[in-house]
Amino acid sequence: MSRQIPVTLTNMCMVRNGDYVLVQDRTDPHWPGVTFPGGHIESGESFTASVIREVYEETGLTIENPRLCGVKEWENSDGSRYIVLLYKADRFSGKVRSSPEGQVCWAALSSLSSLRLSPDFEKLLEVFLRDDLSEFYFEQTPEGWQDHLL
Amino acid sequence: MSRQIPVTLTNMCMVRNGDYVLVQDRTDPHWPGVTFPGGHIESGESFTASVIREVYEETGLTIENPRLCGVKEWENSDGSRYIVLLYKADRFSGKVRSSPEGQVCWAALSSLSSLRLSPDFEKLLEVFLRDDLSEFYFEQTPEGWQDHLL
Repeated sequence: MSRQIPVTLTNMCMVRNGDYVLVQDRTDPHWPGVTFPGGHIESGESFTASVIREVYEETGLTIENPRLCGVKEWENSDGSRYIVLLYKADRFSGKVRSSPEGQVCWAALSSLSSLRLSPDFEKLLEVFLRDDLSEFYFEQTPEGWQDHLL
Repeated sequence: MSRQIPVTLTNMCMVRNGDYVLVQDRTDPHWPGVTFPGGHIESGESFTASVIREVYEETGLTIENPRLCGVKEWENSDGSRYIVLLYKADRFSGKVRSSPEGQVCWAALSSLSSLRLSPDFEKLLEVFLRDDLSEFYFEQTPEGWQDHLL
């Protein structure tokens, strides 16, 4: 019995160098603001290969040890889901460069709240930083979307 | 632009009590042997709620703090994927009981290799136990399926 549902599979990665993290100031008008690099998982690649490729394409850095640390996800009204696999990496090589998707720079973790962050970024950051959290879940309720840190 | 693909979403959880883990000796003839509890993610539930429900249904224990530690996944020839989200938990309440899906008991980690394990279980266990691994990926190649620990 097939139990398949339609899913959009994406990833996002917090590349960390001590107290600094690699951020991207996205130019996308539908999802502007400072966030972490990432993108869609393509056919034929593992999830790990996918996040290594996305970080390279968007930042110029080649990460060596991405580790899954959580997930952001929601279910749409039609039963489909949108999934963002959240990774951390602290070993990398290469030189930082920006891409058409946004300017890239190292930002102190303590300074992030002063930047123009993408929607929900501060809550998402908790899943990256807290070992006791694994999920940022949006629940559709009669009163609208409610978010949960789980 | 939609980038949805058909996905089967499931979970599996290693419930740990010191040097012991909660195992299930599965009765399913298509996937027999000792493994960890888990099952399908249902409509309307978060991934976290899903793994708490599955562990309760199959073992009688209510886990309190499931944390995502990796993923097992593969892409089929038609582009669909099968995903098993891997969780760890070390806080729980309740009393162990078995279910129609299999007998359940605590087994010493050091004794697992002497049991009749489900296919690939020993490699999968590495993702649960090693902090430097996040993925057990099956790649379809001209020579057949190849597995990768990533």
